[in-house]
Amino acid sequence: MSSTFGNIFRVTTFGESHCKGVGAVVDGCPPGLELSEADIQAQLDRRRPGQSAVSTERKEKDQVVIQSGTENGKTLGTPISLFVPNEDQRPGDYSEMANIPRPSHADYTYQMKYGIRSSSGGGRSSARETIGRVCGGAIAEKILREAFNVEIVSWVSSVSHIDSRQPDLLSLNRREVDRNIIRCPDQASADRMIELIKKTKEEKDSLGGTVSCVCRNVPVGLGEPIFQKLEALLAQAMLSIPASKGFEIGSGFEGTRMKGSEHNDPFIKKGERLGTKTNNSGGVQGGISNGEPVFFKVAFKPPATIGQQQQTTDFEGNETTLEAKGRHDPCIVARAVPIVESMAALVLADCLMRQRTR
Amino acid sequence: MSSTFGNIFRVTTFGESHCKGVGAVVDGCPPGLELSEADIQAQLDRRRPGQSAVSTERKEKDQVVIQSGTENGKTLGTPISLFVPNEDQRPGDYSEMANIPRPSHADYTYQMKYGIRSSSGGGRSSARETIGRVCGGAIAEKILREAFNVEIVSWVSSVSHIDSRQPDLLSLNRREVDRNIIRCPDQASADRMIELIKKTKEEKDSLGGTVSCVCRNVPVGLGEPIFQKLEALLAQAMLSIPASKGFEIGSGFEGTRMKGSEHNDPFIKKGERLGTKTNNSGGVQGGISNGEPVFFKVAFKPPATIGQQQQTTDFEGNETTLEAKGRHDPCIVARAVPIVESMAALVLADCLMRQRTR
Amino acid sequence: MSSTFGNIFRVTTFGESHCKGVGAVVDGCPPGLELSEADIQAQLDRRRPGQSAVSTERKEKDQVVIQSGTENGKTLGTPISLFVPNEDQRPGDYSEMANIPRPSHADYTYQMKYGIRSSSGGGRSSARETIGRVCGGAIAEKILREAFNVEIVSWVSSVSHIDSRQPDLLSLNRREVDRNIIRCPDQASADRMIELIKKTKEEKDSLGGTVSCVCRNVPVGLGEPIFQKLEALLAQAMLSIPASKGFEIGSGFEGTRMKGSEHNDPFIKKGERLGTKTNNSGGVQGGISNGEPVFFKVAFKPPATIGQQQQTTDFEGNETTLEAKGRHDPCIVARAVPIVESMAALVLADCLMRQRTR
Amino acid sequence: MSSTFGNIFRVTTFGESHCKGVGAVVDGCPPGLELSEADIQAQLDRRRPGQSAVSTERKEKDQVVIQSGTENGKTLGTPISLFVPNEDQRPGDYSEMANIPRPSHADYTYQMKYGIRSSSGGGRSSARETIGRVCGGAIAEKILREAFNVEIVSWVSSVSHIDSRQPDLLSLNRREVDRNIIRCPDQASADRMIELIKKTKEEKDSLGGTVSCVCRNVPVGLGEPIFQKLEALLAQAMLSIPASKGFEIGSGFEGTRMKGSEHNDPFIKKGERLGTKTNNSGGVQGGISNGEPVFFKVAFKPPATIGQQQQTTDFEGNETTLEAKGRHDPCIVARAVPIVESMAALVLADCLMRQRTR
Repeated sequence: MSSTFGNIFRVTTFGESHCKGVGAVVDGCPPGLELSEADIQAQLDRRRPGQSAVSTERKEKDQVVIQSGTENGKTLGTPISLFVPNEDQRPGDYSEMANIPRPSHADYTYQMKYGIRSSSGGGRSSARETIGRVCGGAIAEKILREAFNVEIVSWVSSVSHIDSRQPDLLSLNRREVDRNIIRCPDQASADRMIELIKKTKEEKDSLGGTVSCVCRNVPVGLGEPIFQKLEALLAQAMLSIPASKGFEIGSGFEGTRMKGSEHNDPFIKKGERLGTKTNNSGGVQGGISNGEPVFFKVAFKPPATIGQQQQTTDFEGNETTLEAKGRHDPCIVARAVPIVESMAALVLADCLMRQRTR
Repeated sequence: MSSTFGNIFRVTTFGESHCKGVGAVVDGCPPGLELSEADIQAQLDRRRPGQSAVSTERKEKDQVVIQSGTENGKTLGTPISLFVPNEDQRPGDYSEMANIPRPSHADYTYQMKYGIRSSSGGGRSSARETIGRVCGGAIAEKILREAFNVEIVSWVSSVSHIDSRQPDLLSLNRREVDRNIIRCPDQASADRMIELIKKTKEEKDSLGGTVSCVCRNVPVGLGEPIFQKLEALLAQAMLSIPASKGFEIGSGFEGTRMKGSEHNDPFIKKGERLGTKTNNSGGVQGGISNGEPVFFKVAFKPPATIGQQQQTTDFEGNETTLEAKGRHDPCIVARAVPIVESMAALVLADCLMRQRTR
Repeated sequence: MSSTFGNIFRVTTFGESHCKGVGAVVDGCPPGLELSEADIQAQLDRRRPGQSAVSTERKEKDQVVIQSGTENGKTLGTPISLFVPNEDQRPGDYSEMANIPRPSHADYTYQMKYGIRSSSGGGRSSARETIGRVCGGAIAEKILREAFNVEIVSWVSSVSHIDSRQPDLLSLNRREVDRNIIRCPDQASADRMIELIKKTKEEKDSLGGTVSCVCRNVPVGLGEPIFQKLEALLAQAMLSIPASKGFEIGSGFEGTRMKGSEHNDPFIKKGERLGTKTNNSGGVQGGISNGEPVFFKVAFKPPATIGQQQQTTDFEGNETTLEAKGRHDPCIVARAVPIVESMAALVLADCLMRQRTR
Repeated sequence: MSSTFGNIFRVTTFGESHCKGVGAVVDGCPPGLELSEADIQAQLDRRRPGQSAVSTERKEKDQVVIQSGTENGKTLGTPISLFVPNEDQRPGDYSEMANIPRPSHADYTYQMKYGIRSSSGGGRSSARETIGRVCGGAIAEKILREAFNVEIVSWVSSVSHIDSRQPDLLSLNRREVDRNIIRCPDQASADRMIELIKKTKEEKDSLGGTVSCVCRNVPVGLGEPIFQKLEALLAQAMLSIPASKGFEIGSGFEGTRMKGSEHNDPFIKKGERLGTKTNNSGGVQGGISNGEPVFFKVAFKPPATIGQQQQTTDFEGNETTLEAKGRHDPCIVARAVPIVESMAALVLADCLMRQRTR
């Protein structure tokens, strides 16, 4: 297991779906930062299961406790331990899957890699693991906001074949994103997405989608070529989120169809600094932020655990069918929104601190 | 700069386009591996500039020398230093760009981040930097081949709007890939790609494209959740390659449009082990290889340095035009093929050695 | 802060003396290891304050809880979170020191480095921080014991000017060490040490001493030259313990007075393997364990917090006197015994897992 | 092998005694630093074999070449590759040792760990490996000097039983140290040391000794508790040097015999800052530099390779005798002086850059 992310601002997460709790230890946080549980709880609430008709029915309060690293509401520069107890556990839901690895889930690979696995709910491959990331990300965001007023906003850009219109990257905020339960700021598309998810849930099936993200006010100079280029770290961060299958920055895959003369972002003067007229680069050139908004998109596959009957085999290879019990998300993109924001914040905060060494 | 990749099998690269040379130090290589320059030269030759009508005219012999870490043709388990001298340098080609940052290139961000930059040719952001990766990757491949007969094959899957038919992932080999200069095994598409690149070169413009990769015989169990999941490390590795803008594994972005019931890969018995009937997962589940072929695709933008006149500004923000001199690739996907293979090999070799700790 | 130790077997500790609690996250522990709180509690009890007349009167139960990473008494291979609540806090004891940095303590340097510090008790520089190390070390020891029956035994070898006779390194065990409260197996010396500590405590003064350690059954081949040689990692580990000022392995400083012909350890046949006749090397040659007992010694200064009046200055540089309140150890070597063992175990377990990559 | 040292300022060394050459890659060096070969050569010349009657007769010019990372005499912020060719190789000298592991040398442990070893001269365990450290250290020193006028001075404090008087830590410089070939500023002791070494060399035997080091003008605040405390990193750095067996900082082992009331360093006002009246702490409190001179001592054993006949066994365990051929140092402390300085510089430069992240 590699449960630590970051070089200077480092987050180590722990916990699986059905143990005492989940959380994170944040090491390398600058001292003197005002920090209380409320700073973290907001994003945890957006990630929480059971929020709406488009997410799992598993209900967790997900109340975070700061166990160390602060005094009188300020960080000490020492490790910040964050803990969220597990509560609504129903291990019985998983008894059927003891001998049948869920197709496209991690049951089989965990068993083969570790020779043992959590008896229920995916253990460390469960979405519950992401709580520690959101805890760390909330602190990272606060650092970025106070230092440069960095704003990180994610939203659902597609569900299945329903694409949404791109919002205004320069003004979009989380309030707008949260106006509907699917977190898609294009309300017409959002309505269709919600409808499709509800229908799919009834069919005991699941849906994929994409989450986009923009980071504004990122200072010029973040990213550490060549192996920790900003886009490389973002890609690692995003592909480490459960169920993600793709990442693109700026023009991404579409940009491969453009000519250099179309794709290049000409420089123009923007106040005191150089900016670019277009932003096909997605705010990153040569692996380093250029001062323009950093934006990227993440692909999420349809959740693997579905209630429909599937033809598959048990661990011994005997043919069988599986109808997954338990409470599962029919589509995880809405809940992935704060997770994507959190991972982006972890990357940027660490890069910011790296750049300060110069 | 973060110039080291890997945890156990670690590659540290060095060198820019116009210094004495480029190379890498490979630390953590297992002892007793047969290794000579010839093992490395083959992939370097595939990466070399000046190979064909679709690449830059800059000519480099790119002859590698092993400076340490072997004796009598075998690795000692000590660091292997690899060096490739720079030869065909024409710094004069870059004089015009001293005051004008190339649009979408790294001139501006390097200058802002480091306060200084190589006076010519992109320095460390040059494609020349990738030589060290290919040196390291060739050694990694040898380890993987000897341990599990792992086969890694990349090819050009698209150039601009020209998509090619997917080859047979189970049989494709490098000989087939190298049959044409664009390294696209679908010959009809290859012909169109080559024609388009030649035409675009004449127009002093450039083209993007995609490179796909398949890794066969990867043993079950590679990848270190949660932050070093196999797909996360591959994504980091690929997005660290110059000009890459996107990464997708298995079904990738297309998979977001499928339902779970379609996307899930049912288990079936394959000889002694469990396999899957389909492979939308791309050989990875829960961040861990599942024994099926690992396959993924990387997006490359059109090269930023073009001979066409571009409207832009100088470093001070004064409007000006730029016509880049120098010798540049009109499309880098063909040369990116061995680089993608090399980075994949670095990821897999490191994960293999990590898994052995258990 | 750098609160993570190890490369593969990694321990991240957290917590200061007066927050909610202290603990550790152990990542990279092999799966399938039997593990319960009892495995950890034994060493925590040996480290606990308030054990005897020679330690601080601060009383803590120091009951550890495993919060994640195990199921049905076995490790899952996932991060193991360990938590010990703080209980007997008397922040009032420290009010006097708010403006006066204790001489030779960390008050001044923490304030200067972080611009803030825990208002009481030394915060993260408190001995309480070592609980996380002991938690991690207990797990490391279990791994080592099961793999190679490795035995790690530390003892107090001197207190102030009272040196003790060296015990039999091949047979000494913890039961013998724990026969007296100062943990010195030479009972005559132990009696003198205890008497001296009691007397010094009455004088509101403190004493230094040394802790020795032997690790038996360490397999040949552990240690990663050149920067993570076994002795280098042990030295780092030991010098990271609060109040330690020196480390020596094998013949150590005394060995500098010997000739090579006296100091060299001739090889002799020991059963199936080569051993050495003498062990001036302390079980390590060229940074790698050679199969002989690894032994080393650690110097601990007299605790800085003393009740005697000291002439010093406040933070502003005004001359003043300080008589430290609070409950402090007059000599920490007895409690350091399990800490030294724990850090040795962390080093050896990590090296063991590193060596398995080959 | 772990051949990389440092977190931000990172040095990766390579090369063994009898390959093409040795060297280092320095990554993370700040951009814009004036740097040429001459900055590095001075320390390399002090480390070089064949300098005097008290060192080995092996002669190497040890001319360093900067292969990358600078342009027009300034660092670019990119990896700096440094290379020193091997020249005076006489592998024949080692033929006798092919089957007989030298007592207390690394032949046996390397063979057991790696299953292979350099056929001659100790390979990577050779003192030749330290060239890369000195290259990196010279750059680190330059950074420290320019930022804070940090001065690092080492000297030989003892050879065998000959102790020298402690020099004035506030004024000692390298010129004074280099006044005699044993690098002991106490000339009377130096004379006795040199005489003893010459005599011992004739006897084909070897001697140990200690090297002390003081670092002045180290700013307050360096060191990263808890596992990368300044003294912990120094200890690791020093114990990674070939033949070192011990490390102590400040009062060290002697300090264990003092009472707290004697050992504590009272604060006094020193100009604008707080200083301490005494410096038993050795410039470090709680793992963090306090602005006073950092000083420490390192123990070096007598070199293992001696010309005298030794009774030992071959690799198979058969009793035999060994008279080492080859050219070896009778006492390595004089040549260890620049190595100790270099490792100290690496630690301090890295800590300095870490502290800047706050």
